[in-house]
Amino acid sequence: MAKLLECALNFSEGQREEVIQAIVAAAQGVRVLDVSSDKDHNRTVVTFVGSLQAAAAAAVQVTAKAVELIDMNAHHGAHPRMGAVDVIPFVPLGQATMEEAVAAARRVGQQLGEDLGIPVYLYEEAATRPERRNLADVRKGEYEGLAQKLADPAWAPDFGPVHPHPTAGATAVGARIYLLAYNVNLGTPDVEVAKAIARAVRAKTGGLQYVKALGVMLHERNQAQVTMNVVDPFRTPLYRVLELVRLEAARYGVPVVGTEIIGLVPLTLLVEAARYYLQLEGFRDDQVLETRLWEA
Amino acid sequence: MAKLLECALNFSEGQREEVIQAIVAAAQGVRVLDVSSDKDHNRTVVTFVGSLQAAAAAAVQVTAKAVELIDMNAHHGAHPRMGAVDVIPFVPLGQATMEEAVAAARRVGQQLGEDLGIPVYLYEEAATRPERRNLADVRKGEYEGLAQKLADPAWAPDFGPVHPHPTAGATAVGARIYLLAYNVNLGTPDVEVAKAIARAVRAKTGGLQYVKALGVMLHERNQAQVTMNVVDPFRTPLYRVLELVRLEAARYGVPVVGTEIIGLVPLTLLVEAARYYLQLEGFRDDQVLETRLWEA
Repeated sequence: MAKLLECALNFSEGQREEVIQAIVAAAQGVRVLDVSSDKDHNRTVVTFVGSLQAAAAAAVQVTAKAVELIDMNAHHGAHPRMGAVDVIPFVPLGQATMEEAVAAARRVGQQLGEDLGIPVYLYEEAATRPERRNLADVRKGEYEGLAQKLADPAWAPDFGPVHPHPTAGATAVGARIYLLAYNVNLGTPDVEVAKAIARAVRAKTGGLQYVKALGVMLHERNQAQVTMNVVDPFRTPLYRVLELVRLEAARYGVPVVGTEIIGLVPLTLLVEAARYYLQLEGFRDDQVLETRLWEA
Repeated sequence: MAKLLECALNFSEGQREEVIQAIVAAAQGVRVLDVSSDKDHNRTVVTFVGSLQAAAAAAVQVTAKAVELIDMNAHHGAHPRMGAVDVIPFVPLGQATMEEAVAAARRVGQQLGEDLGIPVYLYEEAATRPERRNLADVRKGEYEGLAQKLADPAWAPDFGPVHPHPTAGATAVGARIYLLAYNVNLGTPDVEVAKAIARAVRAKTGGLQYVKALGVMLHERNQAQVTMNVVDPFRTPLYRVLELVRLEAARYGVPVVGTEIIGLVPLTLLVEAARYYLQLEGFRDDQVLETRLWEA
């Protein structure tokens, strides 16, 4: 299999269809696999796959267009954000290595900083210091707190100017393994319940290893949501995350009304969920018919 | 995509490893995708895929070897059977049509009858009369009742002699859409419970449409099992079958201890199970990463 990079670029527009499409259309030479927009988050994740070179180039193209069309001074949304393009993670697929994904992240970061005048923080596997690995820490203060953050020597950007881009803020660029973006929608309009559940299930505050979670309000649906990243879903499986959320929600008499997997998900994660719920014995991933039809 | 046939050939040996391997090894020119043996059923399903010609030829090769190595006069097993090779179903995949699968079934039936001296009944889509569509009706009486069945003019075979093969019995050959072979293992050694549950969940006796079910004893595990075929699992989903079995078993205070999917399963069936149990909203089959990597 070839050396491929997957890029799950997050930009800060989730409401205006024509803006979203224009930004996505800027990606050249890669296969766009998914576009997931959320009106309440006012955010879109565009997932594309390509060679080491093409994926990096497309990330820059998309960012340039987003910078042109998005004014962060007018941006409101339920999800934390610091930039028009908020985060650009590269995931190595096929024969690509993490080192190659990190190299792509550095190249992209440099171009964003030098050519587009955007302050850039490298994060996760590309981080230049341990305290910059975690995206939440990098993004803390969000767009509104950027001027102050960039003025702090401890938070000098890895590339670009030491002041925010006047309309596009700052961008985090990094490399990591596949991360599962998973939301659980609750049968309550009380965002405090979602926040309490998030506190209960996130790793940092006594929940499941590898889980990051926030409670947010979905105004369009008048429902609260636990929005999560499972940073190693091959270790902490989907079903365990959902069932713990369900258990914690039960305390408040709140049901789970639906869930969302954002973007793409490796087959093996769904098979593992099926194994748990169907109580499958000895089921192999390669019992899925299509995996046998697609082999060389 | 090419014209492919999948063949899920069932033969009556599930205990002697060397016999199973010798029979499977007889298949030439096809890709063997799965071999699932059950000691209690004393039966193996070998699933292979190939072109229209190759799949038919391999079915005959495997049958010839099974006839050589299996003596039905000495055969005991928990699953109903009438022959050394009990049933040969062809499933059209890719661009293959049901008509082509039926034609392959007829060719194979003719060869088994004329060259190997095995009485053959064509069933499902290949059936020559309505009362022969259903495999259970074709197989009724099993191996031991064959001489009597074949002597009945209403059950004259579609190919081959009007007496059983002296050691290999008779074989059903047919064409059908993908059928899900699914077993549910119960936390009880009482086979009557499994039989009662089978009666409750099978279509014919007031259960779910498209479900055939039997209660059998797994002596090796000292547990009873509901063994099922879901003849249209794209209509009656996996989760609904399992949950109805679970509900019916609860009446007896019996839990489900595990389940088995035999052979291969199309991705979409597992995704549908994941949709139900994970309460997924708007999840598309093509959000599975591998489906996007493998497209042309």
